[in-house]
Amino acid sequence: MPRISKAEIEELCAQALPWVGILGLAIEEIGKGSCRVRMPGKEEFLRPGGTVSGPALMSLADYAMYVAVLSAIGRVELAVTTNLTANFLRRPKPGAIIGDCRLIKLGKRLAYGEVSLYSEGEADAGPVAHVTATYSIPPGRVE
Amino acid sequence: MPRISKAEIEELCAQALPWVGILGLAIEEIGKGSCRVRMPGKEEFLRPGGTVSGPALMSLADYAMYVAVLSAIGRVELAVTTNLTANFLRRPKPGAIIGDCRLIKLGKRLAYGEVSLYSEGEADAGPVAHVTATYSIPPGRVE
Amino acid sequence: MPRISKAEIEELCAQALPWVGILGLAIEEIGKGSCRVRMPGKEEFLRPGGTVSGPALMSLADYAMYVAVLSAIGRVELAVTTNLTANFLRRPKPGAIIGDCRLIKLGKRLAYGEVSLYSEGEADAGPVAHVTATYSIPPGRVE
Amino acid sequence: MPRISKAEIEELCAQALPWVGILGLAIEEIGKGSCRVRMPGKEEFLRPGGTVSGPALMSLADYAMYVAVLSAIGRVELAVTTNLTANFLRRPKPGAIIGDCRLIKLGKRLAYGEVSLYSEGEADAGPVAHVTATYSIPPGRVE
Repeated sequence: MPRISKAEIEELCAQALPWVGILGLAIEEIGKGSCRVRMPGKEEFLRPGGTVSGPALMSLADYAMYVAVLSAIGRVELAVTTNLTANFLRRPKPGAIIGDCRLIKLGKRLAYGEVSLYSEGEADAGPVAHVTATYSIPPGRVE
Repeated sequence: MPRISKAEIEELCAQALPWVGILGLAIEEIGKGSCRVRMPGKEEFLRPGGTVSGPALMSLADYAMYVAVLSAIGRVELAVTTNLTANFLRRPKPGAIIGDCRLIKLGKRLAYGEVSLYSEGEADAGPVAHVTATYSIPPGRVE
Repeated sequence: MPRISKAEIEELCAQALPWVGILGLAIEEIGKGSCRVRMPGKEEFLRPGGTVSGPALMSLADYAMYVAVLSAIGRVELAVTTNLTANFLRRPKPGAIIGDCRLIKLGKRLAYGEVSLYSEGEADAGPVAHVTATYSIPPGRVE
Repeated sequence: MPRISKAEIEELCAQALPWVGILGLAIEEIGKGSCRVRMPGKEEFLRPGGTVSGPALMSLADYAMYVAVLSAIGRVELAVTTNLTANFLRRPKPGAIIGDCRLIKLGKRLAYGEVSLYSEGEADAGPVAHVTATYSIPPGRVE
């Protein structure tokens, strides 16, 4: 079971992560150390070539990691990204993007995981991007 | 001399990259294969801890690379990111961020460069993030 | 079924990749676009702290990707790494290391995949390193 | 001035990093937080296409970072790589490779830097590879 609920993360984001609301990012599922998130198709995410821009995809991936980290350690909102590596594999069509995230390692100080991003409804075509990221967990959190 | 002017890139972004306008990204200087860009301080970029969010920083870095690539090859708007690796080094204070970009390699098919991001007016404190990225250049462009 | 056999890759490496023999790298299993490889425990791979050095782990990961790429496209020995990102997650004890590799994308020009590295017999403890890599596939290969 | 001498690092490597001797890696210059290292041309580093293999280049880059970190913090031999990202930009001809390293950030717990690798005598042709890496510095070291 996740150590924070979907509703709690949504409330935290509403208060302190305006970016998430502007992009319209949403949690579809949450496990312990894993999640599925979604970014709606919006015209403002497009770039030349009629495809979803890299920054929008990276924003979704970073959000997925944040949700997965909190799902594993609870409400430690000061967890921050230290490294994010994005590989763009195909040009997504305009439309919603799904991000599937799982933590690969959860240590006391660092969490590391991967996110596969797909065009909604087209998982069979393979991921449009694959992201790995490391989060730093602040010391002294209450367990 | 750059192979595209600041004004031309700004016009291209106004037409086809709504994201750039939403974030308020601007070009401060442009060389051939290099540039300095700026992201204003905005409340919507903040995250818990009162610092500028990673996705906002990555958006600025990706924009810097796009500008640097076009400055070297001209108006090839379909150039796309294939890899972006971001390392977050310090938490930036709320406020404007400056990005200094230079291409390390410019080939026929790929461009690779680095971007150092600073809090405006605090370059002495060292970069808040360092980003490397690879852009894929579509074949068949007119020289 | 893989498009090249274990024996063919071993022969290719014996002829043209002396490094693989020096390290003692071996293929344990080969699929189509996936493989399991092994590096024996050797004193020369150790580093201060009594752990296997990063370069030895990266060598194994790069070999795993090479084998996985050839398993998918056949004997295209000029395929080369363009990007390799390694995240070191735990310090491996001295001893053999296993690498599990799968391709995430196979295009005409690029292959991208991931490798999870484990201490042999200790997969339950989680990976000691996780690597992603992109290979460039030369044009004009016979299908 | 560096906080460790070339001779001290060489002695440390002779005792505890056999890999460095096997590859023939050497320090050409050492500053405080920077260094130039060299890997000789050896037949065992070659790969199909008659070029220096990626793992040999990454080994040199990782060594350069280790030297640069120790040059900044002194003899903290348990400093370890946590992330290494290598971008391969051109195929080096057989022959010696030079690595120029500088730290971009030196914190209490992490050091981050970049390494540019060149074919010896051909710096004008541009780097053959560009590497960024993060080292973890163990706590409690004597200053």
